[in-house]
Amino acid sequence: MLPAIEGELRRQVRRLDSASTRPFHEMLTYHMGWTGARGARAPGGKRIRPLLCVLVSASVGAEWRKALPAAAALELIHNFSLVHDDIQDNSPTRRGRPALWKKAGMPLAINAGDALFVLANQSVLDLARYFDANVVVTAAAILEQACLDLTRGQFLDLHHQQAGRLTLKQYWEMIDGKTAALLAAATQIGALLGGATATRCYEYRKFGQLLGRAFQVQDDILGIWGEERRTGKSTATDLAEGKLSLPVVYGLAKKGAFARLWRDASKRARNAGRLRRLLEEDEAHEFATRHAKRLTRDAVARLKRLRPRGEAGAALHELCGELLRRSS
Amino acid sequence: MLPAIEGELRRQVRRLDSASTRPFHEMLTYHMGWTGARGARAPGGKRIRPLLCVLVSASVGAEWRKALPAAAALELIHNFSLVHDDIQDNSPTRRGRPALWKKAGMPLAINAGDALFVLANQSVLDLARYFDANVVVTAAAILEQACLDLTRGQFLDLHHQQAGRLTLKQYWEMIDGKTAALLAAATQIGALLGGATATRCYEYRKFGQLLGRAFQVQDDILGIWGEERRTGKSTATDLAEGKLSLPVVYGLAKKGAFARLWRDASKRARNAGRLRRLLEEDEAHEFATRHAKRLTRDAVARLKRLRPRGEAGAALHELCGELLRRSS
Repeated sequence: MLPAIEGELRRQVRRLDSASTRPFHEMLTYHMGWTGARGARAPGGKRIRPLLCVLVSASVGAEWRKALPAAAALELIHNFSLVHDDIQDNSPTRRGRPALWKKAGMPLAINAGDALFVLANQSVLDLARYFDANVVVTAAAILEQACLDLTRGQFLDLHHQQAGRLTLKQYWEMIDGKTAALLAAATQIGALLGGATATRCYEYRKFGQLLGRAFQVQDDILGIWGEERRTGKSTATDLAEGKLSLPVVYGLAKKGAFARLWRDASKRARNAGRLRRLLEEDEAHEFATRHAKRLTRDAVARLKRLRPRGEAGAALHELCGELLRRSS
Repeated sequence: MLPAIEGELRRQVRRLDSASTRPFHEMLTYHMGWTGARGARAPGGKRIRPLLCVLVSASVGAEWRKALPAAAALELIHNFSLVHDDIQDNSPTRRGRPALWKKAGMPLAINAGDALFVLANQSVLDLARYFDANVVVTAAAILEQACLDLTRGQFLDLHHQQAGRLTLKQYWEMIDGKTAALLAAATQIGALLGGATATRCYEYRKFGQLLGRAFQVQDDILGIWGEERRTGKSTATDLAEGKLSLPVVYGLAKKGAFARLWRDASKRARNAGRLRRLLEEDEAHEFATRHAKRLTRDAVARLKRLRPRGEAGAALHELCGELLRRSS
C-alpha cells in the first residue's frame, strides 16, 4: 500500500508543478522527502495516517484504492502542520535534514505550508471520483474538524510554552488536538469510505484517538530518551527547547529539583543532560511508559472488538505493536 | 446584506470560542475587527469578496441568504492570507492597528492564520444546510483552486521580491493569483449557488477576475499615492518595503533614475519620497491609472452583458464604480 500512497501524494503535489512556480513545487517535494540532499532515499516520514486510513478501509471490506485521495489528504495535513511547527518552534532540522524554513526562509516556508493544506483540501474533494457527493462532504467535514482541533492543540502548546507550565489535564487536551485528532479522523474516514455503519465509524474513531495518544506519549519518551541517530533529531532538543512533553509535565507536578532547574528557560539547553537525569530520579520515564502501554493496550482491545477483516486487519494489529516498540 | 455577512462570520469564528482556548478566539476576533482597541468601531475591512458573492447570487434570481456560508468562507480565506502576509512582509500594521503578529507574536499568529483557513473550509461545507451535496463539492473545489492560485501568487511575490525585479507579464500572473483568483471564485460561486448555467457561471467568473485585477492595480496606486489617514497604512510603506506593484514594475522597465535608485534595497525606506517623485517623472502613475480604468471598463462591460437583475444587479454596477473611485 505504501507505494500507492506515495504515488497519490506525488500526483496531488504535482498540481503546483508549472513552469513559473517550479522552485515552489521543489520546496514541497523537498519537504515530502522526494528531492534534495539524499534525494529519493531521504526519509519522508512514516506515513502512518494514510496507512491507517487505507488499512481500516480495507479491513471493513472495501476496495482500499478508492480511499487513496483521503489518505493523501491526511498525510498532506500532517506535513502542512510540520512545516509550520518547525517555524513556530524554531526547530532547525526535520527528518535529519534542514527544516524547510531553514532552507527556503521563513516567509516562503509559511506559504509552502499553506499550499500543503490547500492540496490536502483538494485531495479529499477528489474522493468524488469514486464516491457519492454526500460521502465526500462528510469525509471533508471530519477532516476539517480534525484540522480545527489541530490548531487548538497547537495554540495550547504555544500558549503554555510561553508560561512554561502545563497541568496533566491540559496536556491531554493539547495532544488530543495536536496528534490524536488526525489519527482519529484517519480511522473514522477509513471506516466511512469502507461503508461501515455510523456506530462502527465512531468505534474506529475512538480506536484511532487512543492510538494517537499512545503514539504521542511514545514520541515524548523518544524525544528525551531516544537515540539521535535513529530519530533524526537531537534528543537534547526536546528538553533544550522547553517542549511540554508528558515526562516534563509529570516532573513539573512533582515540584522538586527538576521543576526548579526547569524554571529558567534560558539555561535549559545547557542543562539538558542534567534535566534528563532529574526526570529519571522523579521516575518520569516509568510514568510515561506506563501511560504509553496502557493507551496501546486500550487501543488494541478496541481494535479486537471491531474484528477487522483479512490481511488488512492483521496489519492494523501489527501497526499498533510497532508503534509502541519503535525506537524512532 | 453586510450585517448578515458579519453575523455569519461571527457564527463561523465562534467554533473556536471554548473555555480553554478563549485567548485563541480573541486573536481571531481582534483580527476580524470585532474586539481590541476601538472595539466594535475598528475597521474590519471592506468585505468585498462576500458582498460580491451574495450580490451575484441575488442578481441571478436566488435567495441570497443561502449563499452566506460561501460568502463567509471567501472573507475568512482573505483574512487568513492577510494574517500570513503581514508576517511574510514584516508589516507591523493592518487597518490602522497593530498587525496580529505584532500583538500575539509570530508563532501564535501563524497558527491563527491557519485556523482562519480551517474555518473557511468548514464554512463552505456548511452550504450543505441549503444545497445538494454535488453543489457543495463544486463550490468547495472552486474555492480550493482559488486558494492554490493564492499560494502561487504569494510565492511569485516573495520569490521575485528577493530578486528585486519583475516583468509586466510576471506581474499579471502574480496578481491573478494574489487577488483576482479569490474575486473570480466569489462571483463564480455566487452564480453557481444562484442556479446559473455553467456558461453564465464562467462569464461571472471572468467578470470577477477583471474586477480583481482592476482592484489590485487601484490598490497599488493607493499604496504609493494614497493618503495615509484614509488607507490606514503609511503610503511610504509600499515603496519602503520594496513591494513590486504595477507602478514600480513599470518604472523598473524604464531602466532610468528610478530603477537605479530602487536597486539598493537597504536605502529604499530612506528614499521613499524620492522614489515616488522619480516614478511620477516616469509617468508610472498615468500608466497604472490607465490600466485600472481599462480593466474596470472591461469588467463593467462584461457585467452589462450578463444583465444582472433587480436591486442586486444595480448594486453590482455601483460596487464596480466605487472600487475605482475609492481613495482607501
